[in-house]
Amino acid sequence: MMREVAVIGVGLSRFGERWNAGLKELMAEAGVAAIEDANVKSSDVEMLFGGTMASGRFMGQEHIAALMSDELGFRNIPAVRIENACASGGSALRLGYMSVASGIHDIVVVGGVEKMTDVTSAEAGTALGGAGDQEWELFQGITFPGLYAMMAKRHMHEYGTTEEQLASVSVKNHDNAYKNKYAQFHKKITVQEVLDSKMVSDPLKLFDCSPISDGAAALVLAPLEVARKYNDTPIKILASEQASDTLRLAARESLTSIKATSIAAQKAYKHAKVSAKDISIAEVHDCFTIAEIMAMEDLGFYDKGKAAKAVENGETRLNAGISINTSGGLKGCGHPVGATGVKQAVEVVWQLRGEAGERQVKDARIGLTHNVGGSGATAVVHIFGRAN
Amino acid sequence: MMREVAVIGVGLSRFGERWNAGLKELMAEAGVAAIEDANVKSSDVEMLFGGTMASGRFMGQEHIAALMSDELGFRNIPAVRIENACASGGSALRLGYMSVASGIHDIVVVGGVEKMTDVTSAEAGTALGGAGDQEWELFQGITFPGLYAMMAKRHMHEYGTTEEQLASVSVKNHDNAYKNKYAQFHKKITVQEVLDSKMVSDPLKLFDCSPISDGAAALVLAPLEVARKYNDTPIKILASEQASDTLRLAARESLTSIKATSIAAQKAYKHAKVSAKDISIAEVHDCFTIAEIMAMEDLGFYDKGKAAKAVENGETRLNAGISINTSGGLKGCGHPVGATGVKQAVEVVWQLRGEAGERQVKDARIGLTHNVGGSGATAVVHIFGRAN
Repeated sequence: MMREVAVIGVGLSRFGERWNAGLKELMAEAGVAAIEDANVKSSDVEMLFGGTMASGRFMGQEHIAALMSDELGFRNIPAVRIENACASGGSALRLGYMSVASGIHDIVVVGGVEKMTDVTSAEAGTALGGAGDQEWELFQGITFPGLYAMMAKRHMHEYGTTEEQLASVSVKNHDNAYKNKYAQFHKKITVQEVLDSKMVSDPLKLFDCSPISDGAAALVLAPLEVARKYNDTPIKILASEQASDTLRLAARESLTSIKATSIAAQKAYKHAKVSAKDISIAEVHDCFTIAEIMAMEDLGFYDKGKAAKAVENGETRLNAGISINTSGGLKGCGHPVGATGVKQAVEVVWQLRGEAGERQVKDARIGLTHNVGGSGATAVVHIFGRAN
Repeated sequence: MMREVAVIGVGLSRFGERWNAGLKELMAEAGVAAIEDANVKSSDVEMLFGGTMASGRFMGQEHIAALMSDELGFRNIPAVRIENACASGGSALRLGYMSVASGIHDIVVVGGVEKMTDVTSAEAGTALGGAGDQEWELFQGITFPGLYAMMAKRHMHEYGTTEEQLASVSVKNHDNAYKNKYAQFHKKITVQEVLDSKMVSDPLKLFDCSPISDGAAALVLAPLEVARKYNDTPIKILASEQASDTLRLAARESLTSIKATSIAAQKAYKHAKVSAKDISIAEVHDCFTIAEIMAMEDLGFYDKGKAAKAVENGETRLNAGISINTSGGLKGCGHPVGATGVKQAVEVVWQLRGEAGERQVKDARIGLTHNVGGSGATAVVHIFGRAN
């Protein structure tokens, strides 16, 4: 019998180009905020799960969970770093959830961090290429914009998706980020500006791509039965599911759908006893604009081929139909890769608590996070709900 | 209520300088062997936990668990990479154990892999330096031989440990590796040869240091209650514990003891309801000869300051008192860092099953593995026993 698990504390560092902060400072910023928010003492924390993708490449630093634990004053507890490319944070959350649901641990901290701006863009691109198949993709010259560009081209071919529709994802996410003080970008943009931005990999332009970012995020989890001891508004984790697929895009069944997403989502809906229609807010993995379109379809929010039009129509803006990427998403809020999956959960918790300020969605009751690694070899889906 | 967990299958790749094998080939070699040994089908496997330390630095490849899962034909299951420096394998095993003990999963695979010989020694040393505090140690010029040399010097100062005693660890481990077909080195050495080998960091010479290696290891875990369906000689995991400490050596309480080891060991003995005296075989983390001496003391096999003499007296050879590092240890068998913690468990399983061939310890009933990350910021201790 699994126990119900709640998020009792959340914390974020500001995302962006954080020239004055290293890995330690970013982790401390988010971690201390989460611990204070949860009203726990450092000595209450029994285990730490830390998500980071490529701190070895970016900073020469591995062994990041022990470092996090040390920086946050959790002396001597078990600490593990989880790496699943850009799904490192979501995967860390799932393991943290499992450790509490099973009764093995009571209070655990899940953290995610990435410090990406101390290397050149070329070095960052190469490091991120390690999320795909190094031998069969990166070594042959295919970087991530190239992989997602192929998906975008095929999606345009099969469903008539347009560059303007892709651009409208970015415009919406910048609008949301404008209302988020933690976001990397506070600049509204237009569809025309996206279309006019520099071509990265046809049809994806610079403003179709999420940025290189520094940032950290943290959560404190506890069994639901004791959650109110710490926090008046615990948020329940209704489901935590994950799936994988081939690492290389060429071996997949489809270029226009991420199978790992649909598998994880179906399992999550079943476990949470909800359907896609019940989700009022979702943080989805918009590493590129096409990725948000595919996520909307693979998560079942829209039929295949219908999502792009829905974004263009404004159906996924704040307080429209389903509010997608209220934080600004990876595009607007920033994408410190190991932190992203954890930050998505932080945003959903704020929304469900009613603490999202200017970007608050009215009556948000059930929220979903969707975190992808690589071009879809890993997908993690969490569903959250109010505890009352 | 936790379930009892058994190891039902084990597999190793040959360790060494594997010029013809990449990450995928090494993982497949160990993984297929473990699956066949367990008599499970690929489709029985519910989750994969993969330990790797620095595949990003060594091979440009992150996201290694999804890759492992793909290579082994486990389509679409959740797969996570665990990184805790040289304790990545042991940490992966602990999470795999937790997932089965809790009832969340039945059959899981735990893998460990590292491909280290495609970079220069200098690059490897720098990558491994990421196991310590990059800012406070590596960046200041302190590599791992330097850190362990400081521990050795202090141990010699406090307890009169001699360079000959350190050398005797290496001699024993090379003797054991000589009997292990998977080992990197098949060459017996003498104390004098160790003393005459090139100085790396005073007092540690080349033959006091474990090598740079390629290799992989894998385990299949199942609930004990169903283990005999797959395997006639399941081996029980009696305890699985882990602890952490400060990442940097300078912040620790002691230079001659690894506190994370003693904390994890005490918890493990308590959970397994055994004492150090009950352990007949142990694979300990001898990344440097001094590390085996400290492990023997921190694990409670010998009083502080007494272990070095015991090794010199031959008390830890095969079938002497307690048989330590029957595989040849990290020094003789090789140290592909992410694989080591898993390989230690493979060796203990073979010993407890009575399948260790020429290096079989008579009546081995309870075995222990001890896996350390960095200079001791992470330690993982497992205790195994025969299931009957």
